[in-house]
Amino acid sequence: MTDTQHRTPAVTDYQEVRDLTEALAEPLSAEDQTVQSMPDVSPTKWHRAHATWFFETFLLVPHLKGYQPFDPAFGYLFNSYYEALGKRHPRPDRGLITRPGVAEIGAYRAHVDTAVTHLLEATNLAPELGELILLGLHHEQQHQELLLMDIKHVLSRNPLQPGYRPLAIAAPKSPRSVHWIDHPGGLVEVGHQNDGFAFDNEGPRHRVWLYPFALADRPVTNGEWQAFMDDGGYRRPELWLSDGWAALQASGATAPLYWRCLDGSWTEFTLGGSEPLDPSRPVVHVSYYEADAFARWSAARLPTESEWEAVAAGYPVEGRGLNLDRLRPETGPAGDFGFFGDVWEWTTSAYLPYPGFRPAAGAVGEYNGKFMVGQHVLRGGSCATPAGHVRPTYRNFFPPGAQWAFSGLRLARALGGAR
Amino acid sequence: MTDTQHRTPAVTDYQEVRDLTEALAEPLSAEDQTVQSMPDVSPTKWHRAHATWFFETFLLVPHLKGYQPFDPAFGYLFNSYYEALGKRHPRPDRGLITRPGVAEIGAYRAHVDTAVTHLLEATNLAPELGELILLGLHHEQQHQELLLMDIKHVLSRNPLQPGYRPLAIAAPKSPRSVHWIDHPGGLVEVGHQNDGFAFDNEGPRHRVWLYPFALADRPVTNGEWQAFMDDGGYRRPELWLSDGWAALQASGATAPLYWRCLDGSWTEFTLGGSEPLDPSRPVVHVSYYEADAFARWSAARLPTESEWEAVAAGYPVEGRGLNLDRLRPETGPAGDFGFFGDVWEWTTSAYLPYPGFRPAAGAVGEYNGKFMVGQHVLRGGSCATPAGHVRPTYRNFFPPGAQWAFSGLRLARALGGAR
Amino acid sequence: MTDTQHRTPAVTDYQEVRDLTEALAEPLSAEDQTVQSMPDVSPTKWHRAHATWFFETFLLVPHLKGYQPFDPAFGYLFNSYYEALGKRHPRPDRGLITRPGVAEIGAYRAHVDTAVTHLLEATNLAPELGELILLGLHHEQQHQELLLMDIKHVLSRNPLQPGYRPLAIAAPKSPRSVHWIDHPGGLVEVGHQNDGFAFDNEGPRHRVWLYPFALADRPVTNGEWQAFMDDGGYRRPELWLSDGWAALQASGATAPLYWRCLDGSWTEFTLGGSEPLDPSRPVVHVSYYEADAFARWSAARLPTESEWEAVAAGYPVEGRGLNLDRLRPETGPAGDFGFFGDVWEWTTSAYLPYPGFRPAAGAVGEYNGKFMVGQHVLRGGSCATPAGHVRPTYRNFFPPGAQWAFSGLRLARALGGAR
Amino acid sequence: MTDTQHRTPAVTDYQEVRDLTEALAEPLSAEDQTVQSMPDVSPTKWHRAHATWFFETFLLVPHLKGYQPFDPAFGYLFNSYYEALGKRHPRPDRGLITRPGVAEIGAYRAHVDTAVTHLLEATNLAPELGELILLGLHHEQQHQELLLMDIKHVLSRNPLQPGYRPLAIAAPKSPRSVHWIDHPGGLVEVGHQNDGFAFDNEGPRHRVWLYPFALADRPVTNGEWQAFMDDGGYRRPELWLSDGWAALQASGATAPLYWRCLDGSWTEFTLGGSEPLDPSRPVVHVSYYEADAFARWSAARLPTESEWEAVAAGYPVEGRGLNLDRLRPETGPAGDFGFFGDVWEWTTSAYLPYPGFRPAAGAVGEYNGKFMVGQHVLRGGSCATPAGHVRPTYRNFFPPGAQWAFSGLRLARALGGAR
Repeated sequence: MTDTQHRTPAVTDYQEVRDLTEALAEPLSAEDQTVQSMPDVSPTKWHRAHATWFFETFLLVPHLKGYQPFDPAFGYLFNSYYEALGKRHPRPDRGLITRPGVAEIGAYRAHVDTAVTHLLEATNLAPELGELILLGLHHEQQHQELLLMDIKHVLSRNPLQPGYRPLAIAAPKSPRSVHWIDHPGGLVEVGHQNDGFAFDNEGPRHRVWLYPFALADRPVTNGEWQAFMDDGGYRRPELWLSDGWAALQASGATAPLYWRCLDGSWTEFTLGGSEPLDPSRPVVHVSYYEADAFARWSAARLPTESEWEAVAAGYPVEGRGLNLDRLRPETGPAGDFGFFGDVWEWTTSAYLPYPGFRPAAGAVGEYNGKFMVGQHVLRGGSCATPAGHVRPTYRNFFPPGAQWAFSGLRLARALGGAR
Repeated sequence: MTDTQHRTPAVTDYQEVRDLTEALAEPLSAEDQTVQSMPDVSPTKWHRAHATWFFETFLLVPHLKGYQPFDPAFGYLFNSYYEALGKRHPRPDRGLITRPGVAEIGAYRAHVDTAVTHLLEATNLAPELGELILLGLHHEQQHQELLLMDIKHVLSRNPLQPGYRPLAIAAPKSPRSVHWIDHPGGLVEVGHQNDGFAFDNEGPRHRVWLYPFALADRPVTNGEWQAFMDDGGYRRPELWLSDGWAALQASGATAPLYWRCLDGSWTEFTLGGSEPLDPSRPVVHVSYYEADAFARWSAARLPTESEWEAVAAGYPVEGRGLNLDRLRPETGPAGDFGFFGDVWEWTTSAYLPYPGFRPAAGAVGEYNGKFMVGQHVLRGGSCATPAGHVRPTYRNFFPPGAQWAFSGLRLARALGGAR
Repeated sequence: MTDTQHRTPAVTDYQEVRDLTEALAEPLSAEDQTVQSMPDVSPTKWHRAHATWFFETFLLVPHLKGYQPFDPAFGYLFNSYYEALGKRHPRPDRGLITRPGVAEIGAYRAHVDTAVTHLLEATNLAPELGELILLGLHHEQQHQELLLMDIKHVLSRNPLQPGYRPLAIAAPKSPRSVHWIDHPGGLVEVGHQNDGFAFDNEGPRHRVWLYPFALADRPVTNGEWQAFMDDGGYRRPELWLSDGWAALQASGATAPLYWRCLDGSWTEFTLGGSEPLDPSRPVVHVSYYEADAFARWSAARLPTESEWEAVAAGYPVEGRGLNLDRLRPETGPAGDFGFFGDVWEWTTSAYLPYPGFRPAAGAVGEYNGKFMVGQHVLRGGSCATPAGHVRPTYRNFFPPGAQWAFSGLRLARALGGAR
Repeated sequence: MTDTQHRTPAVTDYQEVRDLTEALAEPLSAEDQTVQSMPDVSPTKWHRAHATWFFETFLLVPHLKGYQPFDPAFGYLFNSYYEALGKRHPRPDRGLITRPGVAEIGAYRAHVDTAVTHLLEATNLAPELGELILLGLHHEQQHQELLLMDIKHVLSRNPLQPGYRPLAIAAPKSPRSVHWIDHPGGLVEVGHQNDGFAFDNEGPRHRVWLYPFALADRPVTNGEWQAFMDDGGYRRPELWLSDGWAALQASGATAPLYWRCLDGSWTEFTLGGSEPLDPSRPVVHVSYYEADAFARWSAARLPTESEWEAVAAGYPVEGRGLNLDRLRPETGPAGDFGFFGDVWEWTTSAYLPYPGFRPAAGAVGEYNGKFMVGQHVLRGGSCATPAGHVRPTYRNFFPPGAQWAFSGLRLARALGGAR
């Protein structure tokens, strides 16, 4: 979505992304794929259809001569939020759509795949169409993570606490103690370099002045979070932002979203079902309010997104990312964690346009820009983020009260005297 | 549920009722059977499970030696409102339960059917157990009608307006004009005679003083309702009860629940999908507020439940009731209607205990009595009421704003000078 | 408002009622008179203005030649619910009207009093105007009770718990134990005889069939209510109507509206401020749900309104009614209570039209009839009901969850075998 | 609240600020001063008491030997949001407190004034106490503006649309056309210099990198806003942030908060009552969502707070500020406006801590820091901001949907090629 020239995806690249979506839906029954457990959540089958609608709407209808839409009504049902494309089904009502069913949505996907593959196999595909397909694949990867976040929430609301699929057993490990990575501050450059795919919100690359700071070399763990709770973390208003404290009083929460205390022991609902809490794993499903309170309790703070990027850009983007047998953040083999692929890390930065930001032209311009208010940026990617979908400049964003993303935190602190 | 001795149902009676539930679910996909479109609505598969839970809980667990519950968790999931049986899944969250799925619920039904059949085939079944089974069957019949009401609402919320199943085409007919059936008033007896099955709320039979009145010989039709609308019926506060007018302002409704005006023509969403409005059919899915306003506009009133019963008891309970090919109220072959089996008819009577009413003992006593506040009585049965499930003394009840039942109205008026 | 000829009130009658309103407002500051503590409550100054508007609108404007309305804008501000008179200020926003202030409303009252007195002093006042003035005075008396109910609620929401005015000290007494008054049942007549003023909803007088029953000779006391609470009354769902139990879970209430437990002792907020709970006084400010649960716990029931009237009509309407030094229900001098003037007593009867009921013609017809849904009838009058404003046929009404009226209860039970 | 040494206020300074509060309340009746029109609004008398409580709580109780609090209950009633000081009356219920009345609050103010004056007249007042008094005066000045914002909202909800006080007539003028003030960008310093009083959130002073930009030399006017409306500004989703569009759909707004269209002409509710809309005045009472949409429609953007400060710091802080005869933003004598004292100007900057921010110690530390989420910064001061209360570094803040502050906007745009 930026100005650079991108490589047109190969047919196999296309198929690989599309296949992963189907693999993610595979453990889910027709019933599982239909239900919406809160307005923010979308049904699995809606994700499968919407990612397909994206290709049909932005690529096939305008650019593939003679293309016949699978069903004209789907434009209304599966448009997410593109006002420029007309009226659409209200978001909180996505769970009311029992028909089309999962089988018909499978047929929809196949119909569109045939047409896109046909385009990709053409010898002289215009570069801007290649770019649209690439955007569509990154869009679908975002929905792969959303699909996992959303079905986790759906299943969590079932008193039987069913798992999404069996996960590999992970023995608790001792996490390395935190080391602090120092940064001298000064004038740094952040934002995307135009050297590969990026969303429009990652640019333009620009200068930011930083003051000396240090960043923890790993996220906060469940064990550290328990210490916060034991020290009255959820009962002490002086640790909380005013809005956060109000949200806490309204919800009555005393722990992260998926934690439960049964007979004195804490368990965590994971995509593998309920598990005993592992103190060595990164804490996940905390809101910005919770993360900020924890940081204040720790006599530290959250980093800004520029600080995060200035440090993380020097580390390899290998991460653990999405792995169907894992699907939870975990301590790495050497008791360590990287910067990418365990939990999304809240930053103190509000989600705002970079200097000189311009949304893409046309309906696709609604992709990011119109959400730039009332949210905070998260960085780094999670255990539900598909491989190849994360980079140091990637800006994820959620409202400060959101907990259902795979969101955790990493501490920062000022270096030097005054700050 | 009353004191009389009832015939123990035959195995074939049992199977017939149970089979009808499955036949009603048959046109519905797993997706259709899972969704809850408002707190008052329950998913199809929940109805299938709950009616089964009723037999398991009240009959098999206490009375069949060695019976193993199909799944101990189902007691929590499928209890509707029996406080005496402990905590249960919240009603507004029934649509969040994707698992057990429809297949597992089918297995649950089979498991319970085997056990009940076993009991029924025993030579010396205690009469009180026969009575419990009879109650269970009438309970399941109630849920058959609820299943149809509820799935109609679910499908109506889908912008594609899919039908539940194809219905037989019914050509519009000219309804007979209304004739008034006079009643001289005086001391009458109403309530159940103890001459067959009845719910506890239908008794005891008791005396009521009536003043002379007349009752229309058929329900109000769609055509008559259109005349009400054309005369400003939904815009004239003087026609409405205060609560009804407030509800109307809040909803902005200008027609019955399932009516839509497309390009100047009215359509009605039926279980067969959207159909052109047939002026000859009984109007259906109106609230008590709407029915009361219509009656005031007609310079008439709704009957009391005693008035209704005093007249209807003299007519045959043949009705049209539930017929899978029809599933909508219709004018009869001779342009007429009976008292039973087209639409439930609102009465001005609040749903209150009859003099001397006593709920059944035990948890079953929560069946009816605890709902005796804030509701109005409807009489007569509808096109979704199973055959054999209606009698002149039957008291259905809904809150005055409810529209999703198959509810219509029949007019009454006072006879004589003063009243 | 019924057909009978009524005596035109004397100027002194008029002035007496109007003066009482001002006497009720006298202990209240401008601030007190302005605030609305919930949508059901109206500010004191609104009551003062509305009762005045009633005379201006229904009497002076149509019938006094040359009358100039005090302020044309008041028609919008002080119309309560008469749709026939056009748009009006929304009820929940009555507390937003800081201007006109209390002084201007005093001037409004004087302006209207001058004009009404002028009419009353005319030698040949048409009887129908005399009847309108009589209606206006009874209307104002209703608002005198509402004023006290409402200001009690306003003051109760102040953490300082200020009293409305100092009340005479009442030493606790021992209430007489309950005696049961038997009634043989049969065909009785209830409703107003047309032998004096009555609201339209009290007629027509009509026959009702009663079964033998007994009625307690006094209301339930605070002490008896404490026994109910001590026996788990607020924790046992089997005692409650389903809607009542839901309301209880939502509110978390464990006692009547104005009770508070401080350091283990119960206090009651009265118009004299907070007082230690007196077990001998009638319990007051309970909802229909609470009254019904108490009756079930007592193995009794509430009476119907016909039962209540059939008995109470034989007792003197002397009662204790509104007395500025008392303003709370109390045990009488001989440890007894009457049927009138301590607490309004909930009945099981829904508030519905009597057979042959016809509202008065014109806008005044909105007075009662349009509220005949979703409410229950209370009988008897309270310590806040002005003298001369109660009779055996008087029907007060509130929704089943309402608590801010001076509402209590009296038990009934069936006599004889079957019922 | 910052580290610098501040001058202790003179007794006359103290009295001048305190007197202005009373002067602001003077046109208001006891009724006006009591009502709360929405949860964000506080009653006038609450502001008068709360500003007094601030001195009593933070200064007199801990530091004046022998000081007797006026009323111990006031600590509960008039604490705004200081969690460290214990429980307090809920904010949405401030309008329920009819007692203490305005007279008693006047006595409270006098009681505290005597004690503070006594302290100020002492020869050896500790500098930290002088600083506390200074903070208390700036705090009271903030509440002076809030008092005006709040009473404007209260009076606006009265259908009679009464004015707060008569304002001087202001003839419409022709505003100068916009000139753009260029800024070359680069590394600039923003934040408070520690050279006089400032709130803690204004520091520390720090470096920020800016790109070249231009800032309009005056705010947007009513006339320009009308052009936006005429061009469909409130009907075109492509102009709005997603949250802003959703808020617009929910409210149905088609114009700024206090605008009304009567018979085709626009009026504006001001503190002087309803006035014809003057196209030359700065637009006021628009939300961040509205301001952002207007800027997008103008092919411009809002400035960041650093951009705003980098330019405005070079202009005189004379402004028009609070003037009891004006109380509305107006075009200056030469058809111009300054940067200070007409309308608060929305910036794109989220309200977040500056690098190195540390809240003051103790309960006073809750003053600013805990609100640093979910809000946007506004700069410049308004027609309701008291003289001497504004400086270039002042950071006001409100949620993006708020409209009841005197909030307007000034446009910015990037200079140079890339941005």
